[in-house]
Amino acid sequence: MLTNALTQLLKIEYPIIQAPMAGGVTTSKLVAEVSNAGGLGMIGAGYMTSHQAREQVREINQLTDKPFGVNLFVPEEFDLIEGEVSSANHALQSIRNQLKLSPKEQFDFPATDDVQEVFTDHIQVIIGEKVPICSFTFGIPSKEIIADLKRNNVFLIGTATTVEEAIENEKAGMDAIAVQGSEAGGHRGSFMGGNQEKLIGLMSLVPQVVDQVSIPVIAAGGIMDGRGLMASFCLGAKGVLMGTAFLTCVESGAQETHKAAILNAHEDQTVLTRSFSGKWARGIENRFITEMKRHERFLPDFPIQNVLTQDIRKASAIQKNTEFMSLWSGQSPRLAKNQTVKKLIQSIIEDVKKINLNL
Amino acid sequence: MLTNALTQLLKIEYPIIQAPMAGGVTTSKLVAEVSNAGGLGMIGAGYMTSHQAREQVREINQLTDKPFGVNLFVPEEFDLIEGEVSSANHALQSIRNQLKLSPKEQFDFPATDDVQEVFTDHIQVIIGEKVPICSFTFGIPSKEIIADLKRNNVFLIGTATTVEEAIENEKAGMDAIAVQGSEAGGHRGSFMGGNQEKLIGLMSLVPQVVDQVSIPVIAAGGIMDGRGLMASFCLGAKGVLMGTAFLTCVESGAQETHKAAILNAHEDQTVLTRSFSGKWARGIENRFITEMKRHERFLPDFPIQNVLTQDIRKASAIQKNTEFMSLWSGQSPRLAKNQTVKKLIQSIIEDVKKINLNL
Repeated sequence: MLTNALTQLLKIEYPIIQAPMAGGVTTSKLVAEVSNAGGLGMIGAGYMTSHQAREQVREINQLTDKPFGVNLFVPEEFDLIEGEVSSANHALQSIRNQLKLSPKEQFDFPATDDVQEVFTDHIQVIIGEKVPICSFTFGIPSKEIIADLKRNNVFLIGTATTVEEAIENEKAGMDAIAVQGSEAGGHRGSFMGGNQEKLIGLMSLVPQVVDQVSIPVIAAGGIMDGRGLMASFCLGAKGVLMGTAFLTCVESGAQETHKAAILNAHEDQTVLTRSFSGKWARGIENRFITEMKRHERFLPDFPIQNVLTQDIRKASAIQKNTEFMSLWSGQSPRLAKNQTVKKLIQSIIEDVKKINLNL
Repeated sequence: MLTNALTQLLKIEYPIIQAPMAGGVTTSKLVAEVSNAGGLGMIGAGYMTSHQAREQVREINQLTDKPFGVNLFVPEEFDLIEGEVSSANHALQSIRNQLKLSPKEQFDFPATDDVQEVFTDHIQVIIGEKVPICSFTFGIPSKEIIADLKRNNVFLIGTATTVEEAIENEKAGMDAIAVQGSEAGGHRGSFMGGNQEKLIGLMSLVPQVVDQVSIPVIAAGGIMDGRGLMASFCLGAKGVLMGTAFLTCVESGAQETHKAAILNAHEDQTVLTRSFSGKWARGIENRFITEMKRHERFLPDFPIQNVLTQDIRKASAIQKNTEFMSLWSGQSPRLAKNQTVKKLIQSIIEDVKKINLNL
């Protein structure tokens, strides 16, 4: 049941992939449980050091003998523009005041080269630890890196938010593509077409991509249950990537206040913001997003803005103040549940059996 | 095949409803052909006089003995603010220059009462001509009108863009709801929550609505073929509303230049604008939208702005200048074809037969 070309390639039972949410959500327990339940667990290693990533891979290997994967952020060039940084930080001071944080003026910004180095170190961890699957967000790695991974039999999954991005992923040698609809929570994976956000709904995006590529398509965005999985299959996808549905699971490392915010949210309460990280991302609207809105277009790029907001995100989590946290969520929070991973995956399979298409 | 509670209630063969596109797209031929092919044709009567609507209903009755419906815009109160109108018109003069149109200062603006009167006249046409189905956009009509239509056995379809709007439609006595995802072309049907646009992707919206209402849900937005229809069914919808797919059909009354623009467009070329009518609508980005963007938030409400742009839309159509036309389109233009209605509906049914879910 539900086996297809993708499940065979990934050597998994069900075509259900846990979206690699960075920032502590994808605990070893979460990733391992997803894989143990027949899906594919993914480490969100975007913000990790290569040491942290290696440690987590080893830890998960103790918890499962099923395949799992690692997701990496493909580094982009970025500039540190002094005026941009100081005016962004000026705007953030009023947020710090509300959290009773001291003003902050000194930051440890990385350089483009540092980020590139961490990325190549991560690639070596994946190869060294024989991680079978690696996915990429925010772009496509160099030919050399792709060739290196392929020589080591790593299965590669790219991310696309438009047909053009999907085509580029296939051309570059990706083995499958996660196609991210506008419904998706967290960061947009867009990497072509400049700053302007392309927000294509999954119902439109999947069939238009499927018609233009020959590698398996994995649907991402707003999918929470067997209905979404079956709908994605009808559109031509071979699997689904689910983020928010796993984020509220018992095993997820998301803040309990974050989980609660999703469990109480409605479908029309998420918005896109670039104020947390410098990249567009979807989360539940709160005071941070509202107050930063007028500065949004002038904020520094990722990862500079992300460094600027680090103390704010940390303090708001400690203070359990959801008004200043990044409450990433897709557009289907009404379908979220606080349950175990095993229960979630089982209920998806139960749903699928129940869907009566009445043909 | 594909029959369900909705097809039985509507007395149609297939759960495929042609979206009621106003402004001349829904010719009698288009509406009748959809119904003759087993779907449900809909007159987009939003901009018609009641005389025009009556004539078209009678004409379609000559072309089919199958059921068809009429869509109406539910009137909202609007204010004519002198300063707003003159600054909007000032911005439009530069567009007129580019079309070699003379400057225009005199307009025949309706009053709220006039619009309300046309609406109640339309209701009388529907009852008088025994039109079996009536759908509504931009709101929910009064209790009296709903009661009047129900006494006359008219099947009522409301429009919702959020769960809350869907619940209100059910409470008001609608027999079914068209649930419009962010993918949809043309006007947004939103009527609650103020001016801010709620853009929920269909993959998220349908299951969240289905869980909260008991009347049949009709999925709308980006659906172009059997894949979209089957996906909608998986999500819990009982039917689909398709606009763009019918707009490019041979029988549609859309400008040939408009059809060609869709047939050549990509999924990431549509945007939301309120510059044509004062209401948010999705269409292919062109010079009109780009140049009016900075005025957008300050433009008068519907229908005032629509009256202001009337000469521009007319002249650009005559001049076949797509840079200033309202090129309404959903987010799936790559799936559009220039074919007959009969061919479109047959190919949807063929698609459905071919979908192998591999369960």
